[in-house]
Amino acid sequence: MADPQNSLGDTPVSAAPLNLPRWAGALPTRAQVAAMIDHSLLRPELTDAEVAAGLRTALECQVASVCVRPSDIAAARAVLDGSRVAVGTVVGFPHGSSTTGAKLFETREAVAAGATEVDVVVHIGRLRSGDLGYVRDEMAAVVQGAGGAIVKVIFENCYLAEAEKIAGYRAAEAAGAHYVKTSTGFASGGATAEDIALMRRTVSPRTGVKAAGGVRSLDALLELHQLGATRFGATATRAILDDLDARRRG
Amino acid sequence: MADPQNSLGDTPVSAAPLNLPRWAGALPTRAQVAAMIDHSLLRPELTDAEVAAGLRTALECQVASVCVRPSDIAAARAVLDGSRVAVGTVVGFPHGSSTTGAKLFETREAVAAGATEVDVVVHIGRLRSGDLGYVRDEMAAVVQGAGGAIVKVIFENCYLAEAEKIAGYRAAEAAGAHYVKTSTGFASGGATAEDIALMRRTVSPRTGVKAAGGVRSLDALLELHQLGATRFGATATRAILDDLDARRRG
Repeated sequence: MADPQNSLGDTPVSAAPLNLPRWAGALPTRAQVAAMIDHSLLRPELTDAEVAAGLRTALECQVASVCVRPSDIAAARAVLDGSRVAVGTVVGFPHGSSTTGAKLFETREAVAAGATEVDVVVHIGRLRSGDLGYVRDEMAAVVQGAGGAIVKVIFENCYLAEAEKIAGYRAAEAAGAHYVKTSTGFASGGATAEDIALMRRTVSPRTGVKAAGGVRSLDALLELHQLGATRFGATATRAILDDLDARRRG
Repeated sequence: MADPQNSLGDTPVSAAPLNLPRWAGALPTRAQVAAMIDHSLLRPELTDAEVAAGLRTALECQVASVCVRPSDIAAARAVLDGSRVAVGTVVGFPHGSSTTGAKLFETREAVAAGATEVDVVVHIGRLRSGDLGYVRDEMAAVVQGAGGAIVKVIFENCYLAEAEKIAGYRAAEAAGAHYVKTSTGFASGGATAEDIALMRRTVSPRTGVKAAGGVRSLDALLELHQLGATRFGATATRAILDDLDARRRG
């Protein structure tokens, strides 16, 4: 067993002041906000009909992508192929406790089925155990297996101490991930302003930050965007965009 | 999209009276109760050290099996090989939304790594959509892939209407599963007396019933046992067995 304190080491992150601003500037356009949303269709109990309705919403709203269950990639492509909405899915979701081999299998299968974005859950237990080599190697295998598809590494921040978060974000960036992501949306906590700020100041500008879990309003989205998030997992997509329209009108 | 009402059809289950008895007979022995417990070590945030401690508990308590995360099978074998405690794991856990291919991969990998029991989550969304062929074929593939290892199919009953439960239990039995299991322990609801009774009267005597999620006391275990459950997923294993000892002493 590794000792988390020893293996995580010091964590000298620049201590940028953490403000929690309301959206102060001009409101973005509906298209600008939609282009930052991954419309999430991940609940395990969703029926085929509910998934189909969600895919139509994603198409109508012109979001960046849908994030569907692995078994729904074909259904998503049937609706979205030819549109600008990307098809994404999840790997090792939501616990991250599957093997590296299984995560790699799922990644390759998803990409072969047409997914162009893959949100993979880090091995939370290994990260908490300080086994950063395991974490980095596993994420590197997934990035490699994704063959150019966008890889977002989900950390489930609610389980992690700050030093574990920082070490994990850095390991994901070292592994070549394109985004670090706050949460699955299925644990006790979701995206927080503090975590978005920490993620943004921990990874370099070439790595994006995705907020997921509890992003249920336009205000939440805009506030987290000001802190550095550029992708948002959301289920309340239409309500968020309709709220934006209403505010821009008056 | 299939219509759940049509494809699930009628569900003529014998309506045995549903009593919720307290344990009435002589108390079983510690060994008898231990032999019905799958000691659960599935929480995603468990560290290596916490898993190791849990494995020692399982060995000391002489439970039927441990149920570990897929990535912990080797650690479990290192502690339990040579004992009577079986090593089990989970597949498609906890959402059941991965593909049949991924579930089959995970099953084969787990069995190759030495797991002799596999708890697999049904595709909840497909079951709710009435796609019983999908459900049955997927579970049959897992049973086949398990090559003789015990397969328990998890239904996550809290998401299912009664007709969906009954159709699902029957599909699992038709697929050759050895147990039907109530819950993952990670959704909003766990094992209930009503569901155990429904499971027991729906499947034939050759298929076992496993209660999981919320089995935190000796009384809960014994009550569900009287209704027909013969395996129990538990994390409070030592407390349950110590309570039994105390009561048997006087």
